[in-house]
Amino acid sequence: MTTASDRRTAILESAARVIARRGVRGLRVEELAAEAGVSTALIYYHFKDRAGVLRRTLEFINDRAERYTTGGEPGAEPQESPKPREPLEPLEPRQELERALLLELQDDELVRENSTAWGELRASAVFEPDLRHDLAKASLTWVQAVADLLGQVQPMAPAGTLALAAERLTALLEGLSMRWLSGILPLAHARALMREAIAVELERLEHP
Amino acid sequence: MTTASDRRTAILESAARVIARRGVRGLRVEELAAEAGVSTALIYYHFKDRAGVLRRTLEFINDRAERYTTGGEPGAEPQESPKPREPLEPLEPRQELERALLLELQDDELVRENSTAWGELRASAVFEPDLRHDLAKASLTWVQAVADLLGQVQPMAPAGTLALAAERLTALLEGLSMRWLSGILPLAHARALMREAIAVELERLEHP
Repeated sequence: MTTASDRRTAILESAARVIARRGVRGLRVEELAAEAGVSTALIYYHFKDRAGVLRRTLEFINDRAERYTTGGEPGAEPQESPKPREPLEPLEPRQELERALLLELQDDELVRENSTAWGELRASAVFEPDLRHDLAKASLTWVQAVADLLGQVQPMAPAGTLALAAERLTALLEGLSMRWLSGILPLAHARALMREAIAVELERLEHP
Repeated sequence: MTTASDRRTAILESAARVIARRGVRGLRVEELAAEAGVSTALIYYHFKDRAGVLRRTLEFINDRAERYTTGGEPGAEPQESPKPREPLEPLEPRQELERALLLELQDDELVRENSTAWGELRASAVFEPDLRHDLAKASLTWVQAVADLLGQVQPMAPAGTLALAAERLTALLEGLSMRWLSGILPLAHARALMREAIAVELERLEHP
């Protein structure tokens, strides 16, 4: 049985796929309807307009990233297809920090699609200010989550210092991820650079 | 008098503008001809095909970035429009390093356009492998230039260590630049984060 919520999720999954493949400019409601196998009327019913689709897709992509960065394992073999992962045993704070950041750099189709779509949504904000508020909110939430993890490793570091380190680490991750996705940086090297950057920032927090 | 070389440059300037505004997917040879005020035949004469236009535009964007990161001044007032800058006095190695990196983060129309077009060209390589080779070469050249500057500040650091630090700094700069361009990170804050990252990496090179 297909519920309204299933159909809404199917539309968002299709939207993320289309944006990753054709960019935000390439997302037309008619094609999205075809891709999701629903009517355009249903899309307007759930999301009001194209801007609504974009906003909800951004949210969907973030929720999905949050799931795979807290539920997967950095050293695990690449997954063959998007599927729910088992939650893991609790980790030491430093391991948890590395896991959260390195899981964005893994050869998994869902991660590639999610990061590509996020990059396209962010790039679209250069000329269309509509999404800026939601993008800024999502970035802030992510920076804050990483700052919290850093604070668990270095509990004596001041909150402001943690936030700055988290901003650098997340921005670096976005830069490395873009280079990896565009095929100019091998994945293993991107991961090594990220791991080293975490070490550099943690050391700086320990000996300011 | 307009020379063939002037017209070629005018086409590349228009291509960078169109890519920044509409993405690589939005670049059609017919529209480029209209934007540059030339015939499509002239574009095919100079660049053979659309792929040739993209490759040469990438090169053009890189040359232009090299000019403004070696000829401008980080603390200068925002320029109102793209114009040639006076070459500056020679700087200390550390200042030169900061200048080269921070000049990518300035409120100048040319810098915005250049960085936006570079981001679009890189994003296009996710699905079209054509540009990967040229992108990788351009990235490598940039990383090597930053590694050289780092080496002038820390001459005892091994080449491999310098290259890794340069990779992190340039990837971070791309990440910060994208956040700034998409309107979710204030310019002054992006510059402060970058300056601090340079300090962190230099310290690490000094006390490995």
